[in-house]
Amino acid sequence: MTTPLRLGIAGLGTVGAGVVKIVQRKADLLARRAGRPIAITAVSARNRDKERGIRLGDYAWEDDPVALARRDDVDVFVELMGGADGPAKAAAEAAIAAGRDVVTANKAMLAHHGQDLALAAEKAGAVLRFEAAVAGGIPVVKALTEGLAGNEVTRVMGVMNGTCNYILTRMEHAHLPYEDIFEEARKLGYLEADPTLDVGGIDAGHKLALLASVAFGAQVDFAGVALEGIERISIADIEQARDMGYRIKLLGVAQMTGRGLVQRMSPCLVPADSPLGQLEGGTNMVVLEGDPVGQIVLRGAGAGEGPTASAVMADVMDIARGTRLSTFGQPASALAQATPAVSSVPAAFYLRMELQDKPGALAKIATVLGEVGVSIDRMRQYQHTEATAPVLIVTHKTRREALDQALAGMDATGVLEGHPVAIRIEDV
Amino acid sequence: MTTPLRLGIAGLGTVGAGVVKIVQRKADLLARRAGRPIAITAVSARNRDKERGIRLGDYAWEDDPVALARRDDVDVFVELMGGADGPAKAAAEAAIAAGRDVVTANKAMLAHHGQDLALAAEKAGAVLRFEAAVAGGIPVVKALTEGLAGNEVTRVMGVMNGTCNYILTRMEHAHLPYEDIFEEARKLGYLEADPTLDVGGIDAGHKLALLASVAFGAQVDFAGVALEGIERISIADIEQARDMGYRIKLLGVAQMTGRGLVQRMSPCLVPADSPLGQLEGGTNMVVLEGDPVGQIVLRGAGAGEGPTASAVMADVMDIARGTRLSTFGQPASALAQATPAVSSVPAAFYLRMELQDKPGALAKIATVLGEVGVSIDRMRQYQHTEATAPVLIVTHKTRREALDQALAGMDATGVLEGHPVAIRIEDV
Repeated sequence: MTTPLRLGIAGLGTVGAGVVKIVQRKADLLARRAGRPIAITAVSARNRDKERGIRLGDYAWEDDPVALARRDDVDVFVELMGGADGPAKAAAEAAIAAGRDVVTANKAMLAHHGQDLALAAEKAGAVLRFEAAVAGGIPVVKALTEGLAGNEVTRVMGVMNGTCNYILTRMEHAHLPYEDIFEEARKLGYLEADPTLDVGGIDAGHKLALLASVAFGAQVDFAGVALEGIERISIADIEQARDMGYRIKLLGVAQMTGRGLVQRMSPCLVPADSPLGQLEGGTNMVVLEGDPVGQIVLRGAGAGEGPTASAVMADVMDIARGTRLSTFGQPASALAQATPAVSSVPAAFYLRMELQDKPGALAKIATVLGEVGVSIDRMRQYQHTEATAPVLIVTHKTRREALDQALAGMDATGVLEGHPVAIRIEDV
Repeated sequence: MTTPLRLGIAGLGTVGAGVVKIVQRKADLLARRAGRPIAITAVSARNRDKERGIRLGDYAWEDDPVALARRDDVDVFVELMGGADGPAKAAAEAAIAAGRDVVTANKAMLAHHGQDLALAAEKAGAVLRFEAAVAGGIPVVKALTEGLAGNEVTRVMGVMNGTCNYILTRMEHAHLPYEDIFEEARKLGYLEADPTLDVGGIDAGHKLALLASVAFGAQVDFAGVALEGIERISIADIEQARDMGYRIKLLGVAQMTGRGLVQRMSPCLVPADSPLGQLEGGTNMVVLEGDPVGQIVLRGAGAGEGPTASAVMADVMDIARGTRLSTFGQPASALAQATPAVSSVPAAFYLRMELQDKPGALAKIATVLGEVGVSIDRMRQYQHTEATAPVLIVTHKTRREALDQALAGMDATGVLEGHPVAIRIEDV
């Protein structure tokens, strides 16, 4: 077992450079742990001349990642280019077809093509792994697939987009509106080129779909993720939720119910004193619930050179040690197609509205809620500002369908200024 | 790969019964994930007739765990008897000698004999795994050995004895002294038959020594763990630490320094708003720090039937899937002997003392600290009660040796009632 494991790395951005640094700087440690050296034989990137702060002179260079993927001196194709389709997918397919193992950090590619790629890998006898695609440095795919392999997973939750959590917690601490902090995040380079990927919940939704597949033995179904971003979260909601003992998080929830698989990525209220509620800034957190293990919480950096490269190396080291596991924890050919849940799991909801200063206004709202069977857990009316008064309501658990009826009924009363805001409160 | 993996389980207490339940109730799920059925062929326990709420009729019974370990129809010997020596060790050795793989939850046995057992297993081509021995259901051995395999681990910390954390947090919430809560914990069955194992930090120290071995590639060195229990923690310390923004935890810290390996299991102050500081009751938490991953925090139930059985099954499932890893993350024959650190890492300290009501008393204390080079970060003197006033001091970072000098000097001033209490503040 002293034959080196030879890596071909496609994509030399932040993460790619991070992987090169680990392989170069920790060579002895890696060899001791793997029982064999880890070597890089070839690399590929869009721009050969860019200064990356790493030595690349010892490695063969390929302009074409597909050519890199097919090289005879590459055992593991490390795909760090990104993008759901295009060169990343073409190269991953080429690598698999050539019998190479593949390690990728590409959540978009796997969310859209994970099932096909995993099937192809199985057919070719190749391994396809993606620890770095979910929650950066947190070894959550491993925890779920292997650490909790004896469990029936009941629910997976997570704050898996550091930028959104940065924006939400920064809004709270700086007492500034979404637009200001969004602009700040953009200037700091925290946002993707297309910011909708972050703030629209798409990036986090990709990750959730991958975790749901592993957790529930179902084929990845990104189309089945109900997506809602943080764009409409106001500073008023953040502060008033806090006042009620909650914080707002862009929370992913995947849950297998009698009515099918629930996959939701949306702003939720969570108790301020829960691990999820205490999460600040760009940190990620994943909560795994299983029978019989109960609740396991994992927390760590969700992005960045070091954490993501660490996760890439976890997969590489597994392969180096001879560990050969299915992409999604069981053979892709055996994964069931998920049945998306027809209705959501009941939950309590936070409602915020601006009540007009009219006699009987609050009674009308309470009556509407009562009529559709939504009962009130807590209600607060704040001091009038000009002609309206902010009213907060926390409901008891109710179905989303009943709540939607209530929201329509509340609009119809004519005692509200604008529409009520409704945000789900997740039991965590 | 449809040959069943055959388990022989020795020890049918809480954890053993939990493992039997998983194998029986989740047979289909396990088979799907492992690619082969998981079967129990034989069991052993002290009392055959005890009612355990599980069906055992299909399994062969062995009175002698050594005989069980040697059975030809056992692939994996699952050791859940406990005890550092005696039958557990004899049976584990017999299993290894017979070429069986071994999965154990036995921290005491591994803390004392882990190196020898791992060497024997390697020689025999057998696998020896122990996920369940550390932090219950949290897959921390896997996270460290595999998930962070690309990292140089810099520090491992953990609250790994749920009973101690229960006692400390319960003292705080109930506002009751140690003795009362100790008694309560005893009645609730939270304490080991020999409670020193819990409150003396020994059980948690075993776990720390195992994690340190994996983290730093060193032979297990339980004798090198500086142990201090929670027996002398007073309600005054808990409350006054809280007042300064800290909570007291029985915290394990393993750290590789230029002066050798630090292994400490002792009461420490941690910031109340840190993940460790927020930990309540019997929950465990392990903090892993590595380059380049940064900080990873894992949280979950540290004991109990379900969580511990879940961890046992993680090892069983690895073996069923063909994953064959070294016990401590690299070959035992390659593990260095740890050099225990000659001096501890500098830290801030919390000091509590009862100052006599004499003019110049506080000045004398401050002078003593200054003379040995210990500088004061914060100080609070509380209202006098009878003849003395409680004084709290948080020092800047200092070496333990300087602090010990200061403590001796403070005793010599003659202005204190009793001795000062000194508790380390860990940077977390």
